[in-house]
Amino acid sequence: MSQLLPEALTKAIDELGRLPGVGARTAERYAYFLLRADTSTTSKLASAIAQLHANVKTCPVTFALIDANQEVSPLYSDPTRNKRTIAVVEEPLDIVAIERTGQFHGTYHVLGGAISPIDGIGPEQLHIPELIKRLQEDEVEEMILATNASVEGESTALFLQRYVQDAGITVTISRLARGIPVGVDLEYADQITLTHALEGRRFL
Amino acid sequence: MSQLLPEALTKAIDELGRLPGVGARTAERYAYFLLRADTSTTSKLASAIAQLHANVKTCPVTFALIDANQEVSPLYSDPTRNKRTIAVVEEPLDIVAIERTGQFHGTYHVLGGAISPIDGIGPEQLHIPELIKRLQEDEVEEMILATNASVEGESTALFLQRYVQDAGITVTISRLARGIPVGVDLEYADQITLTHALEGRRFL
Repeated sequence: MSQLLPEALTKAIDELGRLPGVGARTAERYAYFLLRADTSTTSKLASAIAQLHANVKTCPVTFALIDANQEVSPLYSDPTRNKRTIAVVEEPLDIVAIERTGQFHGTYHVLGGAISPIDGIGPEQLHIPELIKRLQEDEVEEMILATNASVEGESTALFLQRYVQDAGITVTISRLARGIPVGVDLEYADQITLTHALEGRRFL
Repeated sequence: MSQLLPEALTKAIDELGRLPGVGARTAERYAYFLLRADTSTTSKLASAIAQLHANVKTCPVTFALIDANQEVSPLYSDPTRNKRTIAVVEEPLDIVAIERTGQFHGTYHVLGGAISPIDGIGPEQLHIPELIKRLQEDEVEEMILATNASVEGESTALFLQRYVQDAGITVTISRLARGIPVGVDLEYADQITLTHALEGRRFL
């Protein structure tokens, strides 16, 4: 292959192929697209990638992603945000999804993953001690367990619920509702989702 | 959104979202992956992308992609390659696909696309004059039309066949065979492919 394609192109294909879910064909398509794009497109992409590490850091309190020149997440330091409500999420990008609803005015805590024995991730790898500290120091009234609706997300929620209760911390614990997603026909809903939707039915 | 994510991350997501077929969610996944990857991964990717334009150019004879310091494509200058057989392909990466077979020892000519009136691409946008020149100067004996098996690829093959014949150039013209791909069950083959497979059947 090395003599078939220019070395710089082969290198770009190799490096693009490291992106998650990108196979050889997709990497070739990306590299070929970049080759045909104008120089400003490629140089903007290259510099955006190069500057990522230096300009992004993790908030030491909430573990959200913040600008390197910020002390803590603006979603935490903002005085209009209610520190007594914490939404506990797995990953930083989950914050974006919740913020898009415009319905949440509390603060966030990023666990940095979910408990997954198969991937060797136990509670000790997650930012749980820092969560406990916040629950106590910020006098948190409600902790919303906003982990994913996956097996790992459910296990993590269950673990946190027990852990906090065992620690004797008084806090209302809630979990995001599960049910039929908007726009989905009943007949296409899976059995487990439908079971949750029935159990969580609202009386009108 | 701008205050939700660090500016450097937003920028990386925007730029990654310009890649073909990459939507907002995929771009977020890529950016987040790069953020968690070690610095050498991101800097290698950034520099591979940045150096793409400067280090790759188009062969002036075959329009294959070559190193910036090469004169012509090594697949053309190589004395063991038969210049009297030309495989005409749409895009540079098609060469890689054919070379992978190890069965072709001629040279290539990249058209730079296929005739597609809907995209405003006519024969005049393709490297056809240079192909005609090669047919004459290299005394080409066979021209294999290796354009895609799409409507545009077929139209382009048909156009080239007529164009070369009308120009009074004596050359054997062939087209890649169409039929059932290896490993595919007959019942899953589409009607047109099956028609081609029947028409092109080989007597044993």
